[in-house]
Amino acid sequence: MSLNVYLSGEIHTDWREQIIDGSKGLDISFNSAVTDHDASDDCGVAILGAEPNKFWHDNKGAKVNAIRTRKGIADADVVVVRFGDKYKQWNAAFDAGYAAALGKSVIVLHGADHQHALKEVDAAALAVAEEPRQVVEILRYVLTGALPG
Amino acid sequence: MSLNVYLSGEIHTDWREQIIDGSKGLDISFNSAVTDHDASDDCGVAILGAEPNKFWHDNKGAKVNAIRTRKGIADADVVVVRFGDKYKQWNAAFDAGYAAALGKSVIVLHGADHQHALKEVDAAALAVAEEPRQVVEILRYVLTGALPG
Amino acid sequence: MSLNVYLSGEIHTDWREQIIDGSKGLDISFNSAVTDHDASDDCGVAILGAEPNKFWHDNKGAKVNAIRTRKGIADADVVVVRFGDKYKQWNAAFDAGYAAALGKSVIVLHGADHQHALKEVDAAALAVAEEPRQVVEILRYVLTGALPG
Amino acid sequence: MSLNVYLSGEIHTDWREQIIDGSKGLDISFNSAVTDHDASDDCGVAILGAEPNKFWHDNKGAKVNAIRTRKGIADADVVVVRFGDKYKQWNAAFDAGYAAALGKSVIVLHGADHQHALKEVDAAALAVAEEPRQVVEILRYVLTGALPG
Amino acid sequence: MSLNVYLSGEIHTDWREQIIDGSKGLDISFNSAVTDHDASDDCGVAILGAEPNKFWHDNKGAKVNAIRTRKGIADADVVVVRFGDKYKQWNAAFDAGYAAALGKSVIVLHGADHQHALKEVDAAALAVAEEPRQVVEILRYVLTGALPG
Amino acid sequence: MSLNVYLSGEIHTDWREQIIDGSKGLDISFNSAVTDHDASDDCGVAILGAEPNKFWHDNKGAKVNAIRTRKGIADADVVVVRFGDKYKQWNAAFDAGYAAALGKSVIVLHGADHQHALKEVDAAALAVAEEPRQVVEILRYVLTGALPG
Amino acid sequence: MSLNVYLSGEIHTDWREQIIDGSKGLDISFNSAVTDHDASDDCGVAILGAEPNKFWHDNKGAKVNAIRTRKGIADADVVVVRFGDKYKQWNAAFDAGYAAALGKSVIVLHGADHQHALKEVDAAALAVAEEPRQVVEILRYVLTGALPG
Amino acid sequence: MSLNVYLSGEIHTDWREQIIDGSKGLDISFNSAVTDHDASDDCGVAILGAEPNKFWHDNKGAKVNAIRTRKGIADADVVVVRFGDKYKQWNAAFDAGYAAALGKSVIVLHGADHQHALKEVDAAALAVAEEPRQVVEILRYVLTGALPG
Repeated sequence: MSLNVYLSGEIHTDWREQIIDGSKGLDISFNSAVTDHDASDDCGVAILGAEPNKFWHDNKGAKVNAIRTRKGIADADVVVVRFGDKYKQWNAAFDAGYAAALGKSVIVLHGADHQHALKEVDAAALAVAEEPRQVVEILRYVLTGALPG
Repeated sequence: MSLNVYLSGEIHTDWREQIIDGSKGLDISFNSAVTDHDASDDCGVAILGAEPNKFWHDNKGAKVNAIRTRKGIADADVVVVRFGDKYKQWNAAFDAGYAAALGKSVIVLHGADHQHALKEVDAAALAVAEEPRQVVEILRYVLTGALPG
Repeated sequence: MSLNVYLSGEIHTDWREQIIDGSKGLDISFNSAVTDHDASDDCGVAILGAEPNKFWHDNKGAKVNAIRTRKGIADADVVVVRFGDKYKQWNAAFDAGYAAALGKSVIVLHGADHQHALKEVDAAALAVAEEPRQVVEILRYVLTGALPG
Repeated sequence: MSLNVYLSGEIHTDWREQIIDGSKGLDISFNSAVTDHDASDDCGVAILGAEPNKFWHDNKGAKVNAIRTRKGIADADVVVVRFGDKYKQWNAAFDAGYAAALGKSVIVLHGADHQHALKEVDAAALAVAEEPRQVVEILRYVLTGALPG
Repeated sequence: MSLNVYLSGEIHTDWREQIIDGSKGLDISFNSAVTDHDASDDCGVAILGAEPNKFWHDNKGAKVNAIRTRKGIADADVVVVRFGDKYKQWNAAFDAGYAAALGKSVIVLHGADHQHALKEVDAAALAVAEEPRQVVEILRYVLTGALPG
Repeated sequence: MSLNVYLSGEIHTDWREQIIDGSKGLDISFNSAVTDHDASDDCGVAILGAEPNKFWHDNKGAKVNAIRTRKGIADADVVVVRFGDKYKQWNAAFDAGYAAALGKSVIVLHGADHQHALKEVDAAALAVAEEPRQVVEILRYVLTGALPG
Repeated sequence: MSLNVYLSGEIHTDWREQIIDGSKGLDISFNSAVTDHDASDDCGVAILGAEPNKFWHDNKGAKVNAIRTRKGIADADVVVVRFGDKYKQWNAAFDAGYAAALGKSVIVLHGADHQHALKEVDAAALAVAEEPRQVVEILRYVLTGALPG
Repeated sequence: MSLNVYLSGEIHTDWREQIIDGSKGLDISFNSAVTDHDASDDCGVAILGAEPNKFWHDNKGAKVNAIRTRKGIADADVVVVRFGDKYKQWNAAFDAGYAAALGKSVIVLHGADHQHALKEVDAAALAVAEEPRQVVEILRYVLTGALPG
């Protein structure tokens, strides 16, 4: 068994690297959105032409990014959605809902302080973790049956 | 043509009532989650037994509520998702993603201050409105072809 | 909102009647398999001709019954699966898996003694109840928002 | 033609090994749940934290295991479900129902004593075998057209 | 529970009438192809213009008829396919395959002499009957639980 | 049998009225896009606010109209697509492709001069007519079996 | 582009070999049912045990064969269905219907004498050929754009 | 991440070559219809026999071509649809609708003069470009996160 894992959400800490590094040796293909914040914000107008109205500036970019995120989620067996400490992160919750509706296995990753606000998202998940290490342990267990320790 | 419209999101203002009242005379069936905040939070433990751990307290409730929200979204032609001024409202973004993945027509309703944070959600929508009145006007136009004014 | 509820599983106690009676006044359509044990066992050969081999006797009957159960589950919003004290009840677990794969909202109903053996089934459910009364309370809450007491 | 075969059910005898060994030389990819009983029971709490309540202990584990079983069944062309002599084995029947609803080719493997109790499961199968050797013979025939003997 | 039943196949005997008459009092909606042989053969050219080539004459008609048959099968819970004594009746076998692929409950109705030639079709069915009376008895049992006699 | 028919395409002649009038007495529910040209062009900005850029003016309107057209096509059993003498009518061809991908029964209505340019669209249709009268005759035949004359 | 082609139907002439040989050099993967007539008829009882009743003898075999045919059709881009001069060949028509319902590209291969009897099957096809050579030419054209001659 | 991209529409300029050449080094598999205009028009009759009536000449060819285009679109992650300066190009708009209904990411490529006529097609797209270079830049960004310049 091999896994295709999509990593969605927060882009300000190195949680993706922790998971990818921790999963070395496992047969996993990782994907995620473009995590370069500026490129992600400006891709639409940089390629398709400037927009004076911020709404359309963002709309163009969000749609170009959707080409990648839809492909990433559609191909995934497991979608890990990370909620960080800051910002609204509505795109992460949107991805979680999108993945859930497609029947993907969802793992949510967040700190205890977000527990109540994320209860509907957590309720649609097969695992709720607090640390990237736990996500690695889940992926290792799913692929090899080995538990930590 | 008749429409089944699901109203998702913020529960602290009367936007649902404004839309339902404004749509009087149109052939629309409206649904939404249980909007009584306390009932919604406690339904799981009230029916299925208390949980000392807040996570499971919330988990039980969120799953019972999911029976209603999944049915509501699955039956809907149009899903209106409202983001208010306060709170994380991740369940609203989750519903938007869930509805988008099912191919529902999504209308997002939010103030200008949330524009950038909601760009991915807006990009999946067929309309982005600021006022409940505009949602009513869209529904009236879709059903009757009549424009406001 | 109205609900279509399929009641699957144990046929030796009156749990179906308790749920149906308790749901009086709610906009719910209930369905279930034929619960007359003898008719259910013999329907195949009674209609399509006797079989000397018990396997084919049962096979003919199980397929005729499947016309009803597949329709019942396919039409359902909610599938309640009851596990009683006796017998293997593999058809109940089969229905639960079938319903889960179709994305139905599953409610499992069983006593505490079956908890460990049913953990995979429970994990696919949106609610796990011990008493028919709790199922009624869930259905009432889902449709009306009213909690017991 | 190659086949992806998922082996579900009983974990106390070596039926999986018999099928895999017997299928040497055939173009088949086999998958199954984690069959280490203790790891399977405890994976949830071992990774995601202890639970004092047995229900949630099991629930956490069953959901982590579901990441693997859902993937295994979703990828399968053929799902073999084995019912042994002991235990309730409701997860096996659940897998059979899940696989049937997804349109997978189901092969059931059980002794004659379970015939009546499994009639609904057998009725959803394309083959009902008593011995692992027969499953191997079916897989060989399906891939090569060769019959035993 | 109500049923939508599509009656496909042979048009030279009154088996449809027998089933419909026998089902009086049951909550069943019956549909079938246009059974007027001449109208069915000529509908394409009668409406859309003559064709000198018999292939296109038939092609135009078969496509117009497909508007009705596809709708009839798509809406059906149960598809009854009757094979009579004469003719190739490939459209009946085509309908059976079409219905099976859509997951419909298929009942095949044919005499013993066609048993071997129809083994693949029968293997995809939930019931194989020889007499229209048996189909009525199945439908009555499925809807009411009552067995004949 | 009743039919839900969506009428797509040209809005400058009375072909819709001819079909609807000609179908009097048949159990058909007709739907179509908003056919008031000005309302259809301006609905987006009239409701959601003016756009100085014609692209976004049109984009907003086309998306609001899509709420209606998607619903209309999704609900339809039959989609009639009319190509007139003038204009590009790419939305008509888009609707035809959209309907074909959803497995709808497509009827194309156009004059002989467009035959070659529409060959791919016609090849996806179950009928190609030149006159609205022929569409009525098809619908009557499909519902009643009666041929013209 | 590569193609997966399933060859269904008549097993008494070498049409499969003609197509496979003629397609040498094209990137095509061919599959078909087991074409050894005796093995195909007896596979069920040879593996799973004898049946005194011919119906169940055939039923067991047809179901084992269905493991292969369903996989073959499900994986196919193109399904070629051949009707020969003799026998009822209802399994071929069944496969055609099954393939059509799954949205596969169907090519029918038969002589002119079967034209009228196969009109419904032909109407669901993207090509109707009389000679295996023509099927090869279609496959070559589809993959390379090259026409014969 | 790799992409499968289908290039649909205009065949009279070298836009396909520009995109394919510009994408050198990216992990993309490109497909398109047969772009040899004469072969595409005549493939049906060249292989399956002449037709005196132009409608059937075209119909045969369009269906053979559909074997390729359906496969190409079904396999694609991204469908690029190009509208040129001349001709009706209804097949391009048909492909766009077909792709949109399947949930593919659609990129439309056309000059400013077609903006109003293509508003419904553009509204279903994730990007609207004027130059092949922009399509290349989108594909590069989607796969690598790199923006032009």
